Amino acid sequence: MIRIALDAMGGDHAPQAEVEGAVRALAELPPGFVVQLVGRREAIETELARHPGVDRSRVEVHHADDVIGMEEKPLQAVRKKPNSSLVLGLGLQKAGSSDAFVSAGNTGAVLVGSTLLLGLHPGVERATVATLLPTAEAPVLLLDAGATVDCSARELLGFAWLGTIYMQDVLGRPHPKVGLLNVGEEDEKGNAAAKEVHQLLRQTPALNYVGNIEGRDIVAGHHTVGMVDVVVCDGFVGNIVLKFYESVARLIVSLVRKEAPALLATPEMRRVFRHIDYAEYGGAPLLGVNGVSIICHGSSSASALKNAIRMATQAVAHELSAHIGAQFARREAEPRP
Amino acid sequence: MIRIALDAMGGDHAPQAEVEGAVRALAELPPGFVVQLVGRREAIETELARHPGVDRSRVEVHHADDVIGMEEKPLQAVRKKPNSSLVLGLGLQKAGSSDAFVSAGNTGAVLVGSTLLLGLHPGVERATVATLLPTAEAPVLLLDAGATVDCSARELLGFAWLGTIYMQDVLGRPHPKVGLLNVGEEDEKGNAAAKEVHQLLRQTPALNYVGNIEGRDIVAGHHTVGMVDVVVCDGFVGNIVLKFYESVARLIVSLVRKEAPALLATPEMRRVFRHIDYAEYGGAPLLGVNGVSIICHGSSSASALKNAIRMATQAVAHELSAHIGAQFARREAEPRP
Repeated sequence: MIRIALDAMGGDHAPQAEVEGAVRALAELPPGFVVQLVGRREAIETELARHPGVDRSRVEVHHADDVIGMEEKPLQAVRKKPNSSLVLGLGLQKAGSSDAFVSAGNTGAVLVGSTLLLGLHPGVERATVATLLPTAEAPVLLLDAGATVDCSARELLGFAWLGTIYMQDVLGRPHPKVGLLNVGEEDEKGNAAAKEVHQLLRQTPALNYVGNIEGRDIVAGHHTVGMVDVVVCDGFVGNIVLKFYESVARLIVSLVRKEAPALLATPEMRRVFRHIDYAEYGGAPLLGVNGVSIICHGSSSASALKNAIRMATQAVAHELSAHIGAQFARREAEPRP
Repeated sequence: MIRIALDAMGGDHAPQAEVEGAVRALAELPPGFVVQLVGRREAIETELARHPGVDRSRVEVHHADDVIGMEEKPLQAVRKKPNSSLVLGLGLQKAGSSDAFVSAGNTGAVLVGSTLLLGLHPGVERATVATLLPTAEAPVLLLDAGATVDCSARELLGFAWLGTIYMQDVLGRPHPKVGLLNVGEEDEKGNAAAKEVHQLLRQTPALNYVGNIEGRDIVAGHHTVGMVDVVVCDGFVGNIVLKFYESVARLIVSLVRKEAPALLATPEMRRVFRHIDYAEYGGAPLLGVNGVSIICHGSSSASALKNAIRMATQAVAHELSAHIGAQFARREAEPRP
């Protein structure tokens, strides 16, 4: 049995989108998967009543009095609200009563709460938010997408490992290509951390490091090696790239709506836009914590939440967290270069 | 008379694209504009012979034996090749025989050469490459787009001034809105330089500073103030954003080609793609130097080069460089906050 705890009060459309996402996820998942809805029981039950077909033996409701708001300071909120849906949901996993946590709530609070409650695997210096970016072919994983603004070379090296293990375990890519996001391919390019981690990555044959890549290589694969699987950068750059990408995709949709409204609804254009639709991926895994935690957009739809739950089940089924723990334990045992 | 020197040997398609771009620019520009083609005379004349209709009284050919290659180290190349088209073209402006320089050659060499030969205006700490990014409405100016990887807060403040004066002079926006590219709107967001320049910008009432903006605000204007006119960031972030944007635009084109080939050639889709076509802007002005220098993509088409020449004529006609000099002289005379 795999149990996914969902912060039912997290997102902008909670608990409606959360409950609907859970119901739709259960409809797709085989028996043996359970969703644990964490939040105000009454509100959750009201929403559940709209889905009379759901198998209640696969839905647990865990009452939580409190909610952490989007504007609250993360550390303070997590400490002061032990009865919030976020803290209680993570607490289930800490206590061994749950296998994963999914939330569209306050991103900083999910990050801090997951790190505090689940802890980091030994050897992991920083947890990182990893985001799948749509491309014309398979998605690429960008990390860090905003957890840590300034990253040391050691932290960036850790992200390369975390991204590699994620792509192996969850996306089934046996030997993921790792690129370091930089302003040119040459060795001497970049800021101090980029230059240093470039050398560290080159000295790590266990990683399939292809070298520095540029902005144009992220989703379009102009690099000589073609598309990479994992893009490593600090959270300042990653967050800007991620939000910029979302806006460019929306910009194109609005341009088509403006200039070619008749084409917008055609099956062909729908296929184009499906390629660049984030909701397909649902959420961003927080990597490095001892457990599974998936962070979703505050504005997540039921469909995005359904996909985030699916992402969580895959991470659990492939034992992602255990593999990360084992890999970092092995690294810790090795002499540092 | 306005004289624009064009590095005829600079780009990947030189001198064919350069000569054609010059001929087309002259056809659009009123009398009184002259293009100075700098490079190997024979190769230039061969190309000019393909355009028998051109008014030769408006075309000067300045012979240059040498060419700086795309892979050469900028500083070394500029020093060792005084007879290159790049150095001679900038030399014309230094000598007062030309008003602007345009090149699709080695970007670093144009940057270094322009700084060395033209010099910086007093008070300018760094020259910066500014790039116009297409949006659904008017373009926004992003700077620095790659000249300086690590920028101090004072340098970023200088970029805000340079971008403001450019948008006033060349794009006729009287009070350009300036945003600082960051990972959130709150005061405490960002790395050390971002936090510091955020405060400096707030203390500069002569600038129309709207505050921190996020990646999604660059071209889509999700910020509460709507679209900004000038986006300030360091060259590491700016270069990645710029190259990423180009690739996303191309990604969408290739997706439409794949999924909706019949729509690609429709007038409506052509209008959509014209909105996001860089060649419309032609080049990136190098701001802060005592003169006019426009940097173009190595792969620039004749059309892009034509537009870069037009951009150069606008900078000259609006006395951009003199205004930058005067503004920075005024800043220098003021007590620093």
